[in-house]
Amino acid sequence: MSNDKLDQLRTDLDEVNLKLLEVINERARLVQEIGKVKSTQGVNRFDPVRERSMLDHIAEHNKGPFETATLQHLFKQIFKASLELQEEDNSKALLV
Amino acid sequence: MSNDKLDQLRTDLDEVNLKLLEVINERARLVQEIGKVKSTQGVNRFDPVRERSMLDHIAEHNKGPFETATLQHLFKQIFKASLELQEEDNSKALLV
Repeated sequence: MSNDKLDQLRTDLDEVNLKLLEVINERARLVQEIGKVKSTQGVNRFDPVRERSMLDHIAEHNKGPFETATLQHLFKQIFKASLELQEEDNSKALLV
Repeated sequence: MSNDKLDQLRTDLDEVNLKLLEVINERARLVQEIGKVKSTQGVNRFDPVRERSMLDHIAEHNKGPFETATLQHLFKQIFKASLELQEEDNSKALLV
């Protein structure tokens, strides 16, 4: 019985992984859009005040089980990857 | 006009951040459940074959804009945090 339960939980986990993949890429698309708007305005892409505010927002809404510090660490990694994506877009734009 | 657009995109980003927070915690709850089932079976929590299979699953379903290598790096961080969460649960169980 436990193996059936484990199989079911793993199937659920695969589905949640795909949902997570989708939301992370949805977020990346939004960040690309923001990068485009910022580049037309000549505004710096990296905005530490905005990042801090997003991390505070995460802290306020965290219901667990992950601790806020863990989540903020994960989000910082996502922010970093997003910034790199904006920089790639910018390099491509400079090449055309 | 561009500032309105930037404000709108930022509002959208805040919503996506909360969605991401929710899915990451939903995933953590599932991993905790799996940890409980595994501990009753005396099975090792860390399963590199299963991790590899989840990373392959991500690669198969990635439609971008993030590159697969970037996503796999982010998921590995999430796997690591999840394993630490299971270990904490286990230590707590040993204390009672």
